[in-house]
Amino acid sequence: MLLYIYLIAISAEAMSGALAAGRRNMDIFGVCVIAFITALGGGTIRDILLGNFPVTWTQHPEYIYLTVSAGLLTVILSRFMHHLHRVFLLLDAMGLVAFTIIGCSVALRLDYPTVVVLMAGMITGICGGVLRDILCQRLPVVFRHELYASVSLLVGVLYLQLERLGVHADINLAVSFGAGILLRVCAIYWRLSLPTFSYSPQQWK
Amino acid sequence: MLLYIYLIAISAEAMSGALAAGRRNMDIFGVCVIAFITALGGGTIRDILLGNFPVTWTQHPEYIYLTVSAGLLTVILSRFMHHLHRVFLLLDAMGLVAFTIIGCSVALRLDYPTVVVLMAGMITGICGGVLRDILCQRLPVVFRHELYASVSLLVGVLYLQLERLGVHADINLAVSFGAGILLRVCAIYWRLSLPTFSYSPQQWK
Amino acid sequence: MLLYIYLIAISAEAMSGALAAGRRNMDIFGVCVIAFITALGGGTIRDILLGNFPVTWTQHPEYIYLTVSAGLLTVILSRFMHHLHRVFLLLDAMGLVAFTIIGCSVALRLDYPTVVVLMAGMITGICGGVLRDILCQRLPVVFRHELYASVSLLVGVLYLQLERLGVHADINLAVSFGAGILLRVCAIYWRLSLPTFSYSPQQWK
Repeated sequence: MLLYIYLIAISAEAMSGALAAGRRNMDIFGVCVIAFITALGGGTIRDILLGNFPVTWTQHPEYIYLTVSAGLLTVILSRFMHHLHRVFLLLDAMGLVAFTIIGCSVALRLDYPTVVVLMAGMITGICGGVLRDILCQRLPVVFRHELYASVSLLVGVLYLQLERLGVHADINLAVSFGAGILLRVCAIYWRLSLPTFSYSPQQWK
Repeated sequence: MLLYIYLIAISAEAMSGALAAGRRNMDIFGVCVIAFITALGGGTIRDILLGNFPVTWTQHPEYIYLTVSAGLLTVILSRFMHHLHRVFLLLDAMGLVAFTIIGCSVALRLDYPTVVVLMAGMITGICGGVLRDILCQRLPVVFRHELYASVSLLVGVLYLQLERLGVHADINLAVSFGAGILLRVCAIYWRLSLPTFSYSPQQWK
Repeated sequence: MLLYIYLIAISAEAMSGALAAGRRNMDIFGVCVIAFITALGGGTIRDILLGNFPVTWTQHPEYIYLTVSAGLLTVILSRFMHHLHRVFLLLDAMGLVAFTIIGCSVALRLDYPTVVVLMAGMITGICGGVLRDILCQRLPVVFRHELYASVSLLVGVLYLQLERLGVHADINLAVSFGAGILLRVCAIYWRLSLPTFSYSPQQWK
């Protein structure tokens, strides 16, 4: 079940990467690279930080093909993309939540402390997008947007808490996943966001 | 002793990260992320490059809490920050020197060649700031400023040399640390800097 | 033989890094850092992704000295650099092809799946340049230029295919290397490039 959601999630992320590359007029190869990195970059950073070798996608070539195909498909279908705006936001929310849960469970399995488990979830959830934005020369959106990383954090907390209470893994998955999607959709709908910190000194380093 | 300096150092670095995030109007979450990465990013890159797993902070959740708290505190105290300009520069110098010595000693312990030990010191000292600048879309300051990375290099050389001469570890620490702070303060005071390389071809690649 | 080409290649890449740093008015230290990262960054990312520790250059301090020297030499000779434009393009092509073959053979030795082997070749070939462009705040050129990454991919495919057909290693090397250089030179000469994907929605995230 989580696997299917994961496959949908990496495809959706790959597509968002391809669109970002298109906004920078990259060539087809650049589109594939950005699609791949957006989809699998978060998990890669998590694996490297946790010393979890071999990195996941190196053992699953099918993920590579899937993300590159999703990127190319985006190029072909790009003229219809803005009609799919809402579908996309939903797929992206699914991706965020699925990535978070997967990231947490990888770190849990490796016996890391709780706060590191939560960070592994967030890293898996948001780092792909951060890499995409750096490579496309944009200020990372996750640091400025409506609740996004916070959703990832809350999903992680919920998932760990239910795990600790001994809730059956499938039920935990369903509840955490559902709650995460709901939270993200609410955040988008009501434009919920964290307070912003603006600092503009006259002249400081 | 070095531990206390280290804790002060990561707090100071976290604060500099939070201020950089504020200059980009990031939200509270972004501020925490940038604070964390600025403080612990250099050591993380060092650990990964040296294959020194698990990465330090994953075994010390207290460092995570400390850097995030320092970031949040900065937001609260931001209006007083420019009064603390000089305090900050001093804390930052302490951070640079402490990070460098710690980085060198980690690589020494793992039996890397001398030049790699020196690089481990510099990487620990300056990479947090480089990551901060990339994430905040600034040209990394360490590549353009007064002596900064060079201070890190000189501290590493001094530390290694004293180590080799069989100087007692505590004395070595005190001497290297003091010399580093002094050098950095002089560099700031007299605006010492390395020559700059400017290259502006008519049309090259 | 491949070693000599490799040494020429990292020197050429270091020089291209130094020139990029010069275009951003970095100081001498920044020039050395960018030179080093441009030359050895691709191999470093490959080693980390493949879990191939210790990272190559940490065991070969001479590569560090070579790249830093090449960077400094570039500063001294910068006024003559634009006369050497064509020599540079050729050296850069040699670098790309040599890096690709080396990257593929490292991943082959570690028994990774075919597509990962090809990616290891490309990562080694192009990531140094990507890191250079990120650190110098440029949109990575490899994602927009004439056939560059694609040359890397084709060289990898050819190399693996000949390897599989049981061609002698030296002959394989010579053929793959020659074909790669030829392809890259043709791409530059006739300005061959992949189609570009441009996406500019009215207002989409």
